Amino acid sequence: MKKIKNVTFIGMGLINSSLARSLKKKKFYEHSVAVSRRKSTIEKIKKLQIVDKVESDYKKAVENADLIIIGIPVNAYERVLKKISNNLKPEAIVTDVGSVKQSIVKLLRNKLPDNLIFVPGHPIAGTENSGPESGFDGLFRNGWCILTPENNCNKNAVELVKKMWTTVGMKVDVMDSHHHDMVLAITSHIPHIIAYSIVGTVSSLEKSLKKEVIKYAASGFRDFTRIAASDPVMWRDILLMNKDSILKMLKIFKNDLKQLENAINNRDGSYLHKLFSRTRKIRKDVIK
Amino acid sequence: MKKIKNVTFIGMGLINSSLARSLKKKKFYEHSVAVSRRKSTIEKIKKLQIVDKVESDYKKAVENADLIIIGIPVNAYERVLKKISNNLKPEAIVTDVGSVKQSIVKLLRNKLPDNLIFVPGHPIAGTENSGPESGFDGLFRNGWCILTPENNCNKNAVELVKKMWTTVGMKVDVMDSHHHDMVLAITSHIPHIIAYSIVGTVSSLEKSLKKEVIKYAASGFRDFTRIAASDPVMWRDILLMNKDSILKMLKIFKNDLKQLENAINNRDGSYLHKLFSRTRKIRKDVIK
Repeated sequence: MKKIKNVTFIGMGLINSSLARSLKKKKFYEHSVAVSRRKSTIEKIKKLQIVDKVESDYKKAVENADLIIIGIPVNAYERVLKKISNNLKPEAIVTDVGSVKQSIVKLLRNKLPDNLIFVPGHPIAGTENSGPESGFDGLFRNGWCILTPENNCNKNAVELVKKMWTTVGMKVDVMDSHHHDMVLAITSHIPHIIAYSIVGTVSSLEKSLKKEVIKYAASGFRDFTRIAASDPVMWRDILLMNKDSILKMLKIFKNDLKQLENAINNRDGSYLHKLFSRTRKIRKDVIK
Repeated sequence: MKKIKNVTFIGMGLINSSLARSLKKKKFYEHSVAVSRRKSTIEKIKKLQIVDKVESDYKKAVENADLIIIGIPVNAYERVLKKISNNLKPEAIVTDVGSVKQSIVKLLRNKLPDNLIFVPGHPIAGTENSGPESGFDGLFRNGWCILTPENNCNKNAVELVKKMWTTVGMKVDVMDSHHHDMVLAITSHIPHIIAYSIVGTVSSLEKSLKKEVIKYAASGFRDFTRIAASDPVMWRDILLMNKDSILKMLKIFKNDLKQLENAINNRDGSYLHKLFSRTRKIRKDVIK
C-alpha cells in the first residue's frame, strides 16, 4: 500500500478534528495541513496544534497532498471540489466524512472530472458538539465506518481509506450509497428530525410552562435536547440532501405513531403492552 | 416532626428498591417491610437485604407501619389501597412514587376513606431497568420530586414526605396534580411514546434492513432504544392514566412535525436552520 506523506483536512469540525488528533497520534502521515476560511477558526486550530500547518487558500493546501479528507457541510462539496480538483497531484486520493452519500456519488458521476479518485466515506460517530475544540482522540473507537465507492473506483484508494479508519479503531463496511442513505435515514436522520421537532414544540410553549419543562426535564426530553443541540448547518444540509429516504421513512413512522395514538385513545392496553415488549427486545440487540 | 419507626414499601421496583437502599443508609427509620406477591421477587428482595422483612400479606405488612410508600403500576392502586386502608394505624401516612398524579387524586376524592392520610408524590428519576435488583443508592441525588397534595391534606404528613425525599438528596416542589400531569406529558410521556413508536417501526422492518439498523445504530436511534426499553406494564399504565394531557400535547407535536416535514419537502433551508438554532438554545437551558 502507498505510504501517505501529506494529508490535508478540508474543514475542521468535530469529525475532522478528531480524526486529525487520532491519525497524528498513530503517526499515519508525515505532514498535515488544515484548510479553513474563517480567521477565528484558523486561530483556534493553530492553538490546538493538531495539524502541522493551517491554510486559508484551498489550492495551496491541496497541491502536495496524497490524501485529502473533506469534512464540511455536504452542501458545500460541489463548490470546494470544483475549486481543488485541478490542483491535485494525479495520484491524490480524496475522501469525505459526510452523513449522506447518494449526493456525492451523483456529483462524481455528473459534475466532477473523471480522473478524480474519490472514496465516499461515513464514520458513524459524533456528539452534539461542533467545532475544532470539540474533537477528541477516541471518538471513532469501536464504531462502524461505511464506504460507498462506485464500481469503477480505484481499488488501492479504497484499501487506503479503509486502512485509515481501522487505524483509528473503526470497523469498515462497504455498501451501495442508496442503501446507506436509507439505513441512516432510520438510525440517525429521523431521530434527529423528531428530536428537533419536539424540542421546537417546547420552545414555542408559553413562558411559564416552558420554564417548568426545562426545570423538570426528565430522561426522555433531556435526551431529546441533546440530539436537538446538534449543529444546525450540518443537519439542515443532511436533511435536504437525504430528502427522499427521509420522507419515505417519515411516512411509515407517522402511520405507526397514529396507530399508537389510537391505542391510547381507545384504552387498548394489550396493544401497548405488546408493542412495548417488542421494543424492549430491540434494545437488547442494539447493546449486545 | 413525628419520628418514623416502621416503613412499609408496597412494590419493590426500581424506584422503591432504590429508596429502600438510600433510606436504610441514612437511618431514616428503625424497621422496614417490603410487600410483594410474586415468590421469585420475594426471594430476590430477601437476597438483596435492603429491607428487614419481606411479606406477601398486605394487611400484616401495613398494620404497624408509620409510613407506607406505594411503588406499583398506577393501575393497581385502587385495588391495593382498598385492601389496606382498613388495616392502617390511625396516624399512618401513605405516599406513592407514581408518574401520573390526577388519577390518584380522583381516587382519594371519590373512592377511598376520608380519613386516609395520603400525600401523592413523584420523584423524577429512573433508568430503563426495572425490578428490585436494578435499584441503587444515589438514584435520587440532585433530582426533583413533585408532591401534589390536596388542600385538605394533613400538613405534617406533607412535611414528613418532603423530609424523606430531601433525605435522599432530592429537591421538592409542590404543585397541582393537573399541572403536574401536563408538564410530565411533555418532559417524559410524549418522548417515551415517540421512542416506543420509532423503535416499533424498526422492529417491523424486513429482516435484513432491521439487522443493519441495529448494527449501525447511531446516536439518535440508539438513545431511542434506551427509552423504549422501559418497563412495558408501567408505561402502559402511565399512558392510559394520563391520556388527556398526552393526546392534547401529541396533537401539537404532530402539527409541528408536519411543518418540519413540509420544510424538508420544500427545501426550505432557512426554516430548518432557524428551528435547529432555537432548539440548540433549549439544550443550554436544560444542562445549566
